[in-house]
Amino acid sequence: MTSFPSFAALRAACLDLPAGDDAAAAAAAARDAELTKPPGSLGRLEELVGWLARWQARHPPKLDRIEVLVFAGNHGVVAQGVSAFPAAVTVQMVANFAAGGAAINQLAGVAGAKLRVIPLDLDRPTVDFTQAPAMDEGAFLAAVAAGHDAVPADADLICLGEMGIGNTTAAAAIAAALFGGGGARWAGRGTGVDDQGLARKRAAIDAGLARHGAILADPLQVAAALGGRELAAILGAALAARRQRIPVVIDGFVCTAALAPLARLRGDALAHAVAAHVSAEAAHRALLDELCLEPLIDLGMRLGEASGAAVAALILRAALACHSGMATFAEAAVSGKI
Amino acid sequence: MTSFPSFAALRAACLDLPAGDDAAAAAAAARDAELTKPPGSLGRLEELVGWLARWQARHPPKLDRIEVLVFAGNHGVVAQGVSAFPAAVTVQMVANFAAGGAAINQLAGVAGAKLRVIPLDLDRPTVDFTQAPAMDEGAFLAAVAAGHDAVPADADLICLGEMGIGNTTAAAAIAAALFGGGGARWAGRGTGVDDQGLARKRAAIDAGLARHGAILADPLQVAAALGGRELAAILGAALAARRQRIPVVIDGFVCTAALAPLARLRGDALAHAVAAHVSAEAAHRALLDELCLEPLIDLGMRLGEASGAAVAALILRAALACHSGMATFAEAAVSGKI
Repeated sequence: MTSFPSFAALRAACLDLPAGDDAAAAAAAARDAELTKPPGSLGRLEELVGWLARWQARHPPKLDRIEVLVFAGNHGVVAQGVSAFPAAVTVQMVANFAAGGAAINQLAGVAGAKLRVIPLDLDRPTVDFTQAPAMDEGAFLAAVAAGHDAVPADADLICLGEMGIGNTTAAAAIAAALFGGGGARWAGRGTGVDDQGLARKRAAIDAGLARHGAILADPLQVAAALGGRELAAILGAALAARRQRIPVVIDGFVCTAALAPLARLRGDALAHAVAAHVSAEAAHRALLDELCLEPLIDLGMRLGEASGAAVAALILRAALACHSGMATFAEAAVSGKI
Repeated sequence: MTSFPSFAALRAACLDLPAGDDAAAAAAAARDAELTKPPGSLGRLEELVGWLARWQARHPPKLDRIEVLVFAGNHGVVAQGVSAFPAAVTVQMVANFAAGGAAINQLAGVAGAKLRVIPLDLDRPTVDFTQAPAMDEGAFLAAVAAGHDAVPADADLICLGEMGIGNTTAAAAIAAALFGGGGARWAGRGTGVDDQGLARKRAAIDAGLARHGAILADPLQVAAALGGRELAAILGAALAARRQRIPVVIDGFVCTAALAPLARLRGDALAHAVAAHVSAEAAHRALLDELCLEPLIDLGMRLGEASGAAVAALILRAALACHSGMATFAEAAVSGKI
């Protein structure tokens, strides 16, 4: 069991990250140059293979075990009327995941990935952050540790996702705290709030920023005061993946916001992560831009549950299949450039 | 064996197209509204299922048999120095397809699709279109018929693609003839020509447009005079698919240009087709815009071979898996909107 005894201990861990493996990435590039296609003609598929090799620290990289981790949490801020769905849906959807009835069950199946859902104290929502910190130091660090421990050492790829009624409000509050602009910039319609709900959401975010003004310069305290357990767990899982040389696929707005504190602590903290998609949640593009993440797909999805990450995993499988299975110019006796 | 005895007969066939099935699309939308997710939250995945249902004329749609058809042809216009690779590569790559060594072999495998490669008179390149029509009426119609006959009646989805050294020049010439702007607007670097090659390509296109000025108002004569056998076959395959209620995935620039004459003949002729991706070939975005096609992915690919279409087929599989496998709100006892 991982334990981070304090914000300071977690911060130290977040700053002490392994680099990627340049040699593995170079080996991928060298093989790619020999394959029977014009150089560069598979575009990002080629880059993705180099990225997998770099962060798995081996060539060829593997995708034998893709693990989808969906963390679930409940949020006190739903008291502010920020969601189109009742908080009870979080527990109901966790049951739906267990029964195999959610989108992510189907998508993980298509991607050949193993799905694991980790509910985090669903009967104990975080505190309404407009009133007090969502989590105290202990609760936050426990959730980070739970995420850290959820990453299997033998995974080849981790797809991160979440479920939690109210969590786009928490995500937007984190983004606002880290990048400025307030509720007006970061609040979106989430699962589908109407105009009044959107106004309440903006107001809740601004109230949270005002209440927690004293800690806004500390990314980890921001994650504790404005975030949620599932967001903290996502942060912990990405940290564990980096330490264990496992590349990560980031899902949508909430997942990206959950990881943003890592990038604020250390600029290259998400180098082992790729953004699956840009979601239809209004502020996701802006958040990706702040983090210099270029999403793989843009299909108007806004479900969460790692649904975008699972679709992106298909693209990674396609990329690796080309790299591993294609013949070289020499093997196929295909002529090179004139 | 299909036979189109004349341009006029083919034109008549291109104008006589079945409509989509509104009832099947409505059934898809009705089920989608019941699934355990916020309405619209799977974005284009939802639309794609409705599109599959509409053009397969059944609900639920199926993807049991996905067929990737790659047509190959050779081009007399390579004499103008328009390609970075020698014309011999077309035959060599067809052998590579047969041996399983090309990108599309791997991608079709990941997509669970059957790959069929149809070489079209590779030992008989089309005429250099700067000198005379690339194909006479008979040669063009024979290639269209070959494409038409290549579509199996029991396919659930057809992914169209091509291989042919020199064929981005033919594609650009067709686009220029149909949409204006000349070689400067439509020529790109294809497999990777340098600046001199690009200039030769533009000049060849402009020379072709000047030589064939008399027939530029007739989309089918344009396809014959400036296109190629593999492009004509793609046109024929898309026509056959529409008649047999099989949805089509369009690959990149060449494939899109091959189908553009259909859209010029009848505005809704490509309604049963989805654009897989926007390729890195410079003019593909402009061509998609002219045809009002919104690509599914944008990964900087520019290989052809139906490679983008096969990746898009993965997204279609993901979409259908959600639609078919998810629980409804009632089945999962999940609460609806507040």
